[in-house]
Amino acid sequence: MAVRGKLASAREKVLAAEVEWVAVDWGTSNLRAWGMDAAGEITFARSSPDGMSRLSREQYPDVLTSLLSGVAENVEDVLICGMAGARQGWIEAPYLDAPAELGRLAQGAVAPDMPGPLNPRILPGVCLRDLGAEDVMRGEETQLLGLSSLLPGFSGLAVMPGTHSKWALLSGTKLERFSSAMTGEIFELLRTHSVLRHSLGGELEGEDRERGFEAGLDQGLERPERLTATLFKVRAGSLLSGRSAPWCAGFLSGLLIGAEIGGQRDWIGEAEIPLVGSVGLCGLYQMAFARLGASTRIIDATDATLAGLKAARQAQT
Amino acid sequence: MAVRGKLASAREKVLAAEVEWVAVDWGTSNLRAWGMDAAGEITFARSSPDGMSRLSREQYPDVLTSLLSGVAENVEDVLICGMAGARQGWIEAPYLDAPAELGRLAQGAVAPDMPGPLNPRILPGVCLRDLGAEDVMRGEETQLLGLSSLLPGFSGLAVMPGTHSKWALLSGTKLERFSSAMTGEIFELLRTHSVLRHSLGGELEGEDRERGFEAGLDQGLERPERLTATLFKVRAGSLLSGRSAPWCAGFLSGLLIGAEIGGQRDWIGEAEIPLVGSVGLCGLYQMAFARLGASTRIIDATDATLAGLKAARQAQT
Repeated sequence: MAVRGKLASAREKVLAAEVEWVAVDWGTSNLRAWGMDAAGEITFARSSPDGMSRLSREQYPDVLTSLLSGVAENVEDVLICGMAGARQGWIEAPYLDAPAELGRLAQGAVAPDMPGPLNPRILPGVCLRDLGAEDVMRGEETQLLGLSSLLPGFSGLAVMPGTHSKWALLSGTKLERFSSAMTGEIFELLRTHSVLRHSLGGELEGEDRERGFEAGLDQGLERPERLTATLFKVRAGSLLSGRSAPWCAGFLSGLLIGAEIGGQRDWIGEAEIPLVGSVGLCGLYQMAFARLGASTRIIDATDATLAGLKAARQAQT
Repeated sequence: MAVRGKLASAREKVLAAEVEWVAVDWGTSNLRAWGMDAAGEITFARSSPDGMSRLSREQYPDVLTSLLSGVAENVEDVLICGMAGARQGWIEAPYLDAPAELGRLAQGAVAPDMPGPLNPRILPGVCLRDLGAEDVMRGEETQLLGLSSLLPGFSGLAVMPGTHSKWALLSGTKLERFSSAMTGEIFELLRTHSVLRHSLGGELEGEDRERGFEAGLDQGLERPERLTATLFKVRAGSLLSGRSAPWCAGFLSGLLIGAEIGGQRDWIGEAEIPLVGSVGLCGLYQMAFARLGASTRIIDATDATLAGLKAARQAQT
């Protein structure tokens, strides 16, 4: 239960006694909590690897109590976003239907059984039920609400790179529609389990990686419809042209990101595109969008999550 | 070391003493051998699971001797195609460069060290060195030579569905160019390792499967550039629209096959397209090509392999 992250020690300046509520992002593989004072400042940050994927339903109360022990003794109000609200999580928080007014997230929150003084509520995800375009998100809806708070009045496309990247069309706090791409997961599967792994052994960082990334990006952006064929060029390129492992890793990453963006370029409008995610990954997407002449702005995922949890709580009170 | 397959008992009618040479297909996960008499008829068929992936270099001679014991005692001539000639196989048979005259395959054969009377030779694969379009095949080149023998004078596109599907442009016995798509491998990776596995548990056959296949085919053929996004609809469709596991398996299969074909439709010409592979899988590709108005003809992969090994041997003598 280590205190960590850029939000940790520097901001952990206010006494636990001043904590008014606790913001929680409970994802698939991580659990993070922040104490918030009345002014909306962070008083502590804690995290653990107890994500949804390693918990049974019965373990959630103890894990939460343990994470907050000593820092939130007099607090009741705990607002949670993410996979804890999935069917296979703590308790299911049914999806809101898109188009969805994100200002109403807290109204859709569900309270799980919890012994002791803590009063946790879990925010819902959002789903799109259009037949053939079905999609779901849990956690990103809170980041999108945060985005609308960080960029008041923003309307247009926001992109959230990750394991399952989300493309979302926002009108202020209204989520019009969205689509997920399996880019990050496919990269990991191909890197670790496919025939391409033979070309991706050992150290994958290096100066070749950026060159490979740019070559892959070009092919992905130009010919997204050729993805399953171009993927095999990773293997053939290392066999025939002596491509290094970093080059191949960069090419694979560029190809997949390029195909994600190239195949959905009709979503791109006039507005600057917020990229919400880890700063490193967003930097790669920024390069890709720049090739299409689209300007972007990177917003750290944690900042968006915190802003979203704050906004959800405020909208409700 | 069971004798099996449709070619086995029915045709195993000629005495082992009449075997003139042995045709061998030594792939990644299987080893198959056929005795051939002077008239080109099959005299025996044997197979084993000792494919390249489970053998070290030193094991090849014993495995081959053991497979042929009792049926090829007076035979020297053994002609092998497939992954045994890969760098990580028995001995590397360097690629011919495309455009490649497949009639010259036997001239590129390599003889590994072999104790005893057997005199094995391994046919080369073919590679395409064009920068950015690099590709390789081992085994399919022999099937393509067989195709040119089964369909004399054929020119045009041939498609070989499989783990790594091959699209090849033939002019008679000349292989002009080709490209591999990772369709089969990606299907297996997604089915077994990705988040989609939650939607693909249990029995995957059933009447829903064909409906799912057709729905996936439509999306893949129409929007191949959206593949990484549409893949996630497998998961969302099972969560939101109650799609069954067979439906999801069919959708995934149809989507990937559709994207492979839809993204490469500029390869399709006027000629009937030979589909070389397992008859079941080729049937799925046949449905897909039919939606584009392209007529196809299914040729069993084993028939093509045997015709190719025969043609390679004849071209050399």
